[in-house]
Amino acid sequence: MEQFDWLKIKQMAIIWVKEASNQLKASLLETIQVETKSSPDDLVTEMDRKIEQYFLQKIQTHFPSHAFLGEEGMSDEGYFNNDTIWIIDPIDGTTNFVHQQYNFAISVAVYHKGEGKVGLIYDVMNDELYHAVAGEGAYKNEERLEKLTSVDVNKAILGLNARWLLNHTRRYQPFLINIVKNVRGIRSYGSAALEMAYVASGRLDGYISLKLSPWDFAAALVLLNEVGGRYSTFYGEPLAILKSSSVFVGKPQFHEAIIREFVHRS
Amino acid sequence: MEQFDWLKIKQMAIIWVKEASNQLKASLLETIQVETKSSPDDLVTEMDRKIEQYFLQKIQTHFPSHAFLGEEGMSDEGYFNNDTIWIIDPIDGTTNFVHQQYNFAISVAVYHKGEGKVGLIYDVMNDELYHAVAGEGAYKNEERLEKLTSVDVNKAILGLNARWLLNHTRRYQPFLINIVKNVRGIRSYGSAALEMAYVASGRLDGYISLKLSPWDFAAALVLLNEVGGRYSTFYGEPLAILKSSSVFVGKPQFHEAIIREFVHRS
Repeated sequence: MEQFDWLKIKQMAIIWVKEASNQLKASLLETIQVETKSSPDDLVTEMDRKIEQYFLQKIQTHFPSHAFLGEEGMSDEGYFNNDTIWIIDPIDGTTNFVHQQYNFAISVAVYHKGEGKVGLIYDVMNDELYHAVAGEGAYKNEERLEKLTSVDVNKAILGLNARWLLNHTRRYQPFLINIVKNVRGIRSYGSAALEMAYVASGRLDGYISLKLSPWDFAAALVLLNEVGGRYSTFYGEPLAILKSSSVFVGKPQFHEAIIREFVHRS
Repeated sequence: MEQFDWLKIKQMAIIWVKEASNQLKASLLETIQVETKSSPDDLVTEMDRKIEQYFLQKIQTHFPSHAFLGEEGMSDEGYFNNDTIWIIDPIDGTTNFVHQQYNFAISVAVYHKGEGKVGLIYDVMNDELYHAVAGEGAYKNEERLEKLTSVDVNKAILGLNARWLLNHTRRYQPFLINIVKNVRGIRSYGSAALEMAYVASGRLDGYISLKLSPWDFAAALVLLNEVGGRYSTFYGEPLAILKSSSVFVGKPQFHEAIIREFVHRS
């Protein structure tokens, strides 16, 4: 059954991701040349749709029985009868895309019966492709990513957007502030998918967001499975792959320690 | 007078920076291979000193009359009689250096009678060299950087470490929180020199730190001069090049607007 050859499906997805990335790069070049002042936000809307349509059309042609989930919604209302689903973010880090022309990613995941089978996160401008097939290991370009090792909380570098520290009425606030005070450093790159790929590749020890959508994290979880990374909601509950929620990913002992000492104890 | 040919001095400094970067890369490779658990912090101390000594020795050989300022201190107690000074940070972003092996920089500046003449910031792992000579323009590798254009506060991307938001007793706190709430996004990369180079190249619209040393910002100011960037303390006062202080750099109108509407008005 060809549609369950996940390695082959990953290879096809890589070709599509690279083609989509060329469209994104061309759109940036064009916009910079035209220099219309109102264009940045229009560009993001236009390219988000265009790339999503590109993937949708490819998937419907090659895998007509597969469902599709993106920002524009679900391709198939009766998804629960559907075995295989593609979950795609055409541009993760849209603000970076238009303002920095840098540090944005295409995120593509394939899930089967609720399990992550293929995960791709492509850092377009740095030409860094993070990719994994369940059980076959995770890679950054040709380099196989190593199993994540432990790190003490006070030595850890955590990805977190500073904005979350300002929502003073929220339940997570005091926990979060305490975490920030106790880790070694905070980084923020403006792309959730890339930041979770950094966790998978060891550049960050953890990443926290208080609200992500499935297309933001679906591919990252496939990568993290392959390197022994842990993930849950911020409160330590299992992630539902088709629901928006808080997300906390990290090195195994670090993830445990934060949940145990800073979230549950608080 | 050869010591005032700043373009030639920049070319020499570039050669030294590239040589120093090779030493840093080799040290990372060696440490990873040895895998001594206690080595990361020792490595930073050792390499900081080693690279600083390397520059000091080069400068004393080629420009014996020039002074030198680095983390280890000033080469010359009687600096006020000294016309030319090199201000060097061998590793800017030391936590990134040991924990990420990524996003750290070598920062080299030459000041003459208090004016920035040469500025170099080298992103070692990405091989991106930001460089400028006063009056001759600023460059990222071979690409000449354009004059900075204006950006509205609510569209701006600001470099800021989340940690500064947690010092609740400090005078700058309410101003800073208000700024973070009103800009479009916050980023944090863990290297002040690189983040200011990003401002010079347009990747960030501004950068704020509440405490930097001269070697963190000296080179960046030379770059910013060439592209029309503004800089001051967080409170809008002029920066003293040989003193630690808060630093706020940014696109011209953005810098003005923040100082006027968020710092002075508060």
